[in-house]
Amino acid sequence: MYRSARNLQRFSARLSNLRAVQRSVTVRNISPASGVLLHQLRMASSESYRIERDTFGELKVPSDKYYGAQTVRSTMNFKIGGATERMPIQVIKAFGILKKAAAEVNKDYGLDPKIADAIMTAADEVAAGKLDDHFPLVVWQTGSGTQTNMNVNEVISNRAIEILGGKLGSKDPVHPNDHVNKSQSSNDTFPTAMHIAAAKEVHEVLLPGLQKLHDALAAKAQEFKDIIKIGRTHTQDAVPLSLGQEFGGYVQQVKYSIVRVKAAMPHVYELAAGGTAVGTGLNTRIGFAEKVADKVSALTGLPFVTAANKFEALAAHDALVELSGSLNTVAVSMMKITNDIRFLGSGPRSGLGELILPENEPGSSIMPGKVNPTQCEAMTMVAAQVMGNHVAVTVGGSNGHFELNVFKPMIIKNVLNSARLLGDACVSFTNNCVLGIEANTERINKLMNESLMLVTALNPHIGYDKAATIAKTAHKEGSTLKATAIKLGFLTEEQFDQWVRPQDMLGPK
Amino acid sequence: MYRSARNLQRFSARLSNLRAVQRSVTVRNISPASGVLLHQLRMASSESYRIERDTFGELKVPSDKYYGAQTVRSTMNFKIGGATERMPIQVIKAFGILKKAAAEVNKDYGLDPKIADAIMTAADEVAAGKLDDHFPLVVWQTGSGTQTNMNVNEVISNRAIEILGGKLGSKDPVHPNDHVNKSQSSNDTFPTAMHIAAAKEVHEVLLPGLQKLHDALAAKAQEFKDIIKIGRTHTQDAVPLSLGQEFGGYVQQVKYSIVRVKAAMPHVYELAAGGTAVGTGLNTRIGFAEKVADKVSALTGLPFVTAANKFEALAAHDALVELSGSLNTVAVSMMKITNDIRFLGSGPRSGLGELILPENEPGSSIMPGKVNPTQCEAMTMVAAQVMGNHVAVTVGGSNGHFELNVFKPMIIKNVLNSARLLGDACVSFTNNCVLGIEANTERINKLMNESLMLVTALNPHIGYDKAATIAKTAHKEGSTLKATAIKLGFLTEEQFDQWVRPQDMLGPK
Amino acid sequence: MYRSARNLQRFSARLSNLRAVQRSVTVRNISPASGVLLHQLRMASSESYRIERDTFGELKVPSDKYYGAQTVRSTMNFKIGGATERMPIQVIKAFGILKKAAAEVNKDYGLDPKIADAIMTAADEVAAGKLDDHFPLVVWQTGSGTQTNMNVNEVISNRAIEILGGKLGSKDPVHPNDHVNKSQSSNDTFPTAMHIAAAKEVHEVLLPGLQKLHDALAAKAQEFKDIIKIGRTHTQDAVPLSLGQEFGGYVQQVKYSIVRVKAAMPHVYELAAGGTAVGTGLNTRIGFAEKVADKVSALTGLPFVTAANKFEALAAHDALVELSGSLNTVAVSMMKITNDIRFLGSGPRSGLGELILPENEPGSSIMPGKVNPTQCEAMTMVAAQVMGNHVAVTVGGSNGHFELNVFKPMIIKNVLNSARLLGDACVSFTNNCVLGIEANTERINKLMNESLMLVTALNPHIGYDKAATIAKTAHKEGSTLKATAIKLGFLTEEQFDQWVRPQDMLGPK
Amino acid sequence: MYRSARNLQRFSARLSNLRAVQRSVTVRNISPASGVLLHQLRMASSESYRIERDTFGELKVPSDKYYGAQTVRSTMNFKIGGATERMPIQVIKAFGILKKAAAEVNKDYGLDPKIADAIMTAADEVAAGKLDDHFPLVVWQTGSGTQTNMNVNEVISNRAIEILGGKLGSKDPVHPNDHVNKSQSSNDTFPTAMHIAAAKEVHEVLLPGLQKLHDALAAKAQEFKDIIKIGRTHTQDAVPLSLGQEFGGYVQQVKYSIVRVKAAMPHVYELAAGGTAVGTGLNTRIGFAEKVADKVSALTGLPFVTAANKFEALAAHDALVELSGSLNTVAVSMMKITNDIRFLGSGPRSGLGELILPENEPGSSIMPGKVNPTQCEAMTMVAAQVMGNHVAVTVGGSNGHFELNVFKPMIIKNVLNSARLLGDACVSFTNNCVLGIEANTERINKLMNESLMLVTALNPHIGYDKAATIAKTAHKEGSTLKATAIKLGFLTEEQFDQWVRPQDMLGPK
Repeated sequence: MYRSARNLQRFSARLSNLRAVQRSVTVRNISPASGVLLHQLRMASSESYRIERDTFGELKVPSDKYYGAQTVRSTMNFKIGGATERMPIQVIKAFGILKKAAAEVNKDYGLDPKIADAIMTAADEVAAGKLDDHFPLVVWQTGSGTQTNMNVNEVISNRAIEILGGKLGSKDPVHPNDHVNKSQSSNDTFPTAMHIAAAKEVHEVLLPGLQKLHDALAAKAQEFKDIIKIGRTHTQDAVPLSLGQEFGGYVQQVKYSIVRVKAAMPHVYELAAGGTAVGTGLNTRIGFAEKVADKVSALTGLPFVTAANKFEALAAHDALVELSGSLNTVAVSMMKITNDIRFLGSGPRSGLGELILPENEPGSSIMPGKVNPTQCEAMTMVAAQVMGNHVAVTVGGSNGHFELNVFKPMIIKNVLNSARLLGDACVSFTNNCVLGIEANTERINKLMNESLMLVTALNPHIGYDKAATIAKTAHKEGSTLKATAIKLGFLTEEQFDQWVRPQDMLGPK
Repeated sequence: MYRSARNLQRFSARLSNLRAVQRSVTVRNISPASGVLLHQLRMASSESYRIERDTFGELKVPSDKYYGAQTVRSTMNFKIGGATERMPIQVIKAFGILKKAAAEVNKDYGLDPKIADAIMTAADEVAAGKLDDHFPLVVWQTGSGTQTNMNVNEVISNRAIEILGGKLGSKDPVHPNDHVNKSQSSNDTFPTAMHIAAAKEVHEVLLPGLQKLHDALAAKAQEFKDIIKIGRTHTQDAVPLSLGQEFGGYVQQVKYSIVRVKAAMPHVYELAAGGTAVGTGLNTRIGFAEKVADKVSALTGLPFVTAANKFEALAAHDALVELSGSLNTVAVSMMKITNDIRFLGSGPRSGLGELILPENEPGSSIMPGKVNPTQCEAMTMVAAQVMGNHVAVTVGGSNGHFELNVFKPMIIKNVLNSARLLGDACVSFTNNCVLGIEANTERINKLMNESLMLVTALNPHIGYDKAATIAKTAHKEGSTLKATAIKLGFLTEEQFDQWVRPQDMLGPK
Repeated sequence: MYRSARNLQRFSARLSNLRAVQRSVTVRNISPASGVLLHQLRMASSESYRIERDTFGELKVPSDKYYGAQTVRSTMNFKIGGATERMPIQVIKAFGILKKAAAEVNKDYGLDPKIADAIMTAADEVAAGKLDDHFPLVVWQTGSGTQTNMNVNEVISNRAIEILGGKLGSKDPVHPNDHVNKSQSSNDTFPTAMHIAAAKEVHEVLLPGLQKLHDALAAKAQEFKDIIKIGRTHTQDAVPLSLGQEFGGYVQQVKYSIVRVKAAMPHVYELAAGGTAVGTGLNTRIGFAEKVADKVSALTGLPFVTAANKFEALAAHDALVELSGSLNTVAVSMMKITNDIRFLGSGPRSGLGELILPENEPGSSIMPGKVNPTQCEAMTMVAAQVMGNHVAVTVGGSNGHFELNVFKPMIIKNVLNSARLLGDACVSFTNNCVLGIEANTERINKLMNESLMLVTALNPHIGYDKAATIAKTAHKEGSTLKATAIKLGFLTEEQFDQWVRPQDMLGPK
Repeated sequence: MYRSARNLQRFSARLSNLRAVQRSVTVRNISPASGVLLHQLRMASSESYRIERDTFGELKVPSDKYYGAQTVRSTMNFKIGGATERMPIQVIKAFGILKKAAAEVNKDYGLDPKIADAIMTAADEVAAGKLDDHFPLVVWQTGSGTQTNMNVNEVISNRAIEILGGKLGSKDPVHPNDHVNKSQSSNDTFPTAMHIAAAKEVHEVLLPGLQKLHDALAAKAQEFKDIIKIGRTHTQDAVPLSLGQEFGGYVQQVKYSIVRVKAAMPHVYELAAGGTAVGTGLNTRIGFAEKVADKVSALTGLPFVTAANKFEALAAHDALVELSGSLNTVAVSMMKITNDIRFLGSGPRSGLGELILPENEPGSSIMPGKVNPTQCEAMTMVAAQVMGNHVAVTVGGSNGHFELNVFKPMIIKNVLNSARLLGDACVSFTNNCVLGIEANTERINKLMNESLMLVTALNPHIGYDKAATIAKTAHKEGSTLKATAIKLGFLTEEQFDQWVRPQDMLGPK
């Protein structure tokens, strides 16, 4: 293929043009579905711009893009951070859902069905991720997310225009403001999209990830329930417990992580849509807010409702600060669990060595046998990131003024990042570490039997003082409890074996 | 009085001695109740120490103190931070409750009733704050809080010994470990005291404070419901809302603050007691854990239960991280509300000036009429502190290892500090600010009527373009919308008055 | 073009293949330079994989990629976060610089010059960003960054093999470990790349951005030096200052921001290279560390030196925590400055209105005249993000163990993100806001002249009490100081004009 | 003593009264020096209040207190947090220094020498801590610290009045505002006191603490320089280093901690004094600012200078955010070091056991031989607190508005707390842990000799493949490298002993 030099040259020129018009924006999703790709290629091949105007003058818009002047202007005014800082695609998709729902309700309230249907079709494509590369804006724009709302309005209107056979950029017959944004404001749509995106990420990524980890740990707790091991408090030797009990603590943490995240959701299910510019609902119809929430709920299968108080829903993002707080608690749990697992798996010769962690990749080119607990490391890094994200969300959430909080894009970026990273890391950690963990029973037994803390069991039989003498002597002489006890003449071998039974030390009597 | 030089000299010597034995520790509570004060004076007058021993040798214990050798040793080993860094007294009182409950259960399980009763009486005194100055230890000790547990054991045993007519320091007939600490370990009692203290502070200080603030704001929202004012988004003029609606947003935030804090409590109600050293419950009796939780619940009137998983309850403090997260969200809400109120009350001439805040103290010695929003400032400082405390709790919570988290004293210090500061600040802010807020209706009306954003109401009548022309012209010429509209010939005065009605812009149609 | 359906089909198939092999990884940089693009096209056209092995078995490596088995394995084991979470490209480029420097030094120490030269050429391409899409790994991998080091080693060795006419994946004649990684370990190269990347980002993005902002603010301070305005403390009216003085405070903050960032750099200039696995420098030659630092310094023009203590340089990242701390302080300064500017520019009718901010985009579709301070909003969001990033860096930095901190990728990701966002935001804020700020002198004068605080100037002439009476009366009656003073008969109009002169209140006497 | 019941009764009544007038405020410092105590007793004995007025009406002031109406009013308006939340005494003492310096300069500028001298004497007493219990205000007051400034002005004026034989509360002949606060405003004095207090705490507590820790660690590094041990990366076994090298890393961290803190001081040395209300220096004389800074410098021995820009010095606290950032970095270092030490000292049987940490207190009543690393725990808790404090400072620092930051008391509270805790914890950790650390050479050697990582040394002699075979076989069979190598026939015992020499693996060749 492309043996013909001329074709190759053309292709190369094509790609080069493609790059030029995208100005450093990556091709995030060249979806082959629905003819979109072919359409894009067709548009790209024009090598041209169309001229659009906004109230500030003329602007060149790449002819292969559905977005319009306001989007282009934002890319010019906010050159901050580059492609990795783009508005999270989950927010764009959530906007697709919202715009579809709003169009449907507007249709009920009298919007021309032809227009409404075209908007709904286009919005569906946005929600399905088919138009992802038409959303070039970064998070670091206006704090209300207005420019992203307009980006969505422009893309949907142009795509709807195209569906209806019109001319891109003509705003006819589908106007980005008058039709796509009807009964809406950036100030209520953006927070609505924030909540939809957050709720979906929690349900689609985070909770399944946590559940998977929970189940894997629970299975290990069951598997390890009869393995008795030394306990450690203050990082120092303590009385025994079963390895199953130890893992049971982790299981409980993950179980409660799920509970905590779910407990934070009710306020996230409240949608601001219908509040418009300042929360009063100016320019909407009575019932609009409730109907939109119902539609969004139907489209997502999640129990969204209209916000009890729209002023709060625009001016504050306490619901997302709360959710972020629950993610922070999850991160704290993850840090504890994975830290334990890497220390319990440390070695192979000079560590604690009670667990054998799966070997997933070459450890070191010069040090054979070296298994690095890399999945634990990824998880603890994620945990640290989530803690940091939470502070960013907290600072942003606290700095709203009057009728609008203008840290919206930053807040949702961090919440989505935390949810995604935790969810993904749970899956990765489960598949690549937890499922393969084995107990090094030989090592566990050795440490267990050498432990001086078992002496505790002798207290009721020979008294604390003699027990202490045994332990201190054994410690000083580096000998075992049993040998020392017998040597000191405090008891017989039979008595020792009968009285010092770790399996009897695992619960109340 | 004390005219006699000799008496004065004696008194002075007395105080000086008192100071010496207290080594920089403040006289936090010289409670006159129960004869404790007289007893202290008697003890102080001995100017002497008693010698106690622990396994590390002899130590001088002030003869007027109920604590013993382990407490003294901790004051020697942890000279960190001084008196302001003492273990929060709420933790000590919570220990009083726990020790009473444990003694009662131990009595059920066979502990000598005479001993149990004396312990319960002494524990009651601790819980009532009668022995506060016998707890000199700082937060910065062992991370399990062991030394504070021993401080409590020593104080209760000595006070019980005294009640039973014994000799302080003799450990007879009430032994700090064998009797007061029976069936317990620092590792389960300290987290139990943490949860009791946190729950009580939340119920006794934080929630009442939030409720008080909620009610005061709700009353203001009602009072202000008919005052229509300019809205502000992006700090810029926007369409109108009522002052009642604006305050309604704050009411919602506080209402949800209460919901959030309550939602975090179920895990705090779980008590670790009965887990002993590593969570297995070694050296307890079956049922001990449940009975202790029941007793604590009865003593406090709060729905405490035994922790579902004791391993988690010792090794992690996710429940308090979660609670701290809810306090962080409350702080975020408070920052928003109080920031708004100080900006809305800014002036008197060069600010927004819509609210008149109560004047509580001289503003400035040279600038009359200057009212500083000092209550808002106290609250925003508290909010910042709570956000910081939350990070400390998060870091501490994430760094537990194996069977024990050893950031316990630091964690509870911060949680209690956050709860107390928020609760107190709510009361102070309510009493000294919210209750006295008045609307500056003259100013509100003036800004309202000058606003260019009311032009929005003309859109359906003369179209967006003409409306825009009116607004832009008025802005450029510094004139009113009405004058400009008439001058431009777009409508009559009567039409303007009929169409531009802020009171019709406060909700959906 | 592409009118031929067949060509279109081929092109479409090509893109589809391209996507398949990239598995969701974006085409970050299809650089047309150096024939790389044509090569990629050639490789892509093969539609095939090559089989590579590592010690864990066989793996399919896309034939159009220079990376090898270890990179592919990492993409399989760490499916966390997706394309936006890729290792920052600055780290990859820094590795290019380091690998070139190491090859040059290794050549001095005897590495075959042909191999060394090919490595250096390939490393140059990495440093120049020509091979960016050969680095698919995410940040959330092993905490030592080993997999990214191996990714770099694999890409450079394969590219060098290609240059020398060999077969990709053959490791002959250029071996990724033995040659590209010679005298190196991930444990010292990754932190070296971290420091190089951070220092370059600071010098290339952050400091120029801060300087630009500084200069623009300084010019404004000069421009505004004669405009006298009301001061505000506690958000309330206070005595006057000049607008130039007010901006002068901002200038000082930015000036010190530059000082602070530079002050944090000396430790960042210390490079870990030469420490190898644990800091001892095992398997390096004496002098290697120093020579590498010299080369890196020469290649970058920055004063890099070899780290004074390699153990510290591997096991801790205090230098980057310190740098992050300085970025946090810069963020704090930016939050203050931009908050002020948006409040001073609030309005147009109902805000403070002292500044006129440039209008960069349509504010609202329904509210003409509404200028949103969007650049301030972007900057304050960036500031919040940097504060959050700093906590992530702090948590990661504090959790190193023994000879290695394993939060490396997370730490550098956050530091680079903070530096980039702040630098970019400074430029955007300067160009799109600061340069166009105008003083609304009419408004400033009006507020100034209405101010009651000017009464302070009368104290020395008529005494504090009479001055206070004037101010209080004027406040109560809503009149001016002058009218009130005259009406009260305390002074004449001439005296008032002579004594109350704001321009005399701007400095000490 | 006090056998007379009557005397006892009197004493009891006295203490009771004392408590009543102090309303929950602790007796922080009943200094016996200078007759202050006797004076307090005399005042206390009056059992009475004096009536003072401010512009808001009459107030009862305890007759034994030097403070006046504004202080009392603050205690009524800000019931937040209680005694532990009092303004740090270091701030009060710093105010003593500042007020003395200001009085001296005012004297130069014409203030009545008699008045100036009395102020200076009283200010000296404040600076010396003799009047500590006359400062009851909490941190949570106005954000400018005005009330504490007035508290200081009132105490100094009343004490100066007393010195001059006047009547407390008469403001004659020494007026709190006109004389003590002359040429000053809360807005410049409070930040000046913040800087003085912070600088002194850093120099008197933090830096000596860090130096002490540095020296102790350096001595240990020297002591341990010949002990070769297994290295650990990723918590897993790695190639060897000496224990001295490992401690050398800690030494470097502490050395750089000192460098970092010192590097943050230059901006802290800048004093706001002379800026008065908004930074212009209104009501001061030219030269006042410089002279005050000189005096403060002379009084403290620290290189204070007048702030380069007073607007920045009032409106922002970047200097303290920067200092807090350096403390945060120190905390990060401390967390690493102490975490390592507790893990290296873990055991005695089931941990790493390479270090023997000093036993400072009974570990557990039932588990003999259990040494808990309690000093490490105190330090890591301090580190977490400092990280949290830093976030509080960051949030407060970022939220200044216009001419004044009003988070001042909260900011300085946290900075002082961090400096004090770190300094104290360094001393405690050094004295009670570092100085007594011993190497468990037997254990170290055992782990060292068992290590499979030593196989690395064979690479140049028998090749990587055979070396890997030895390591893997030894790992699988649980045997030693030497036995396995010989058994496999790859080398002789003599060769092994000659080639595998850990002491040759500690540096470059």
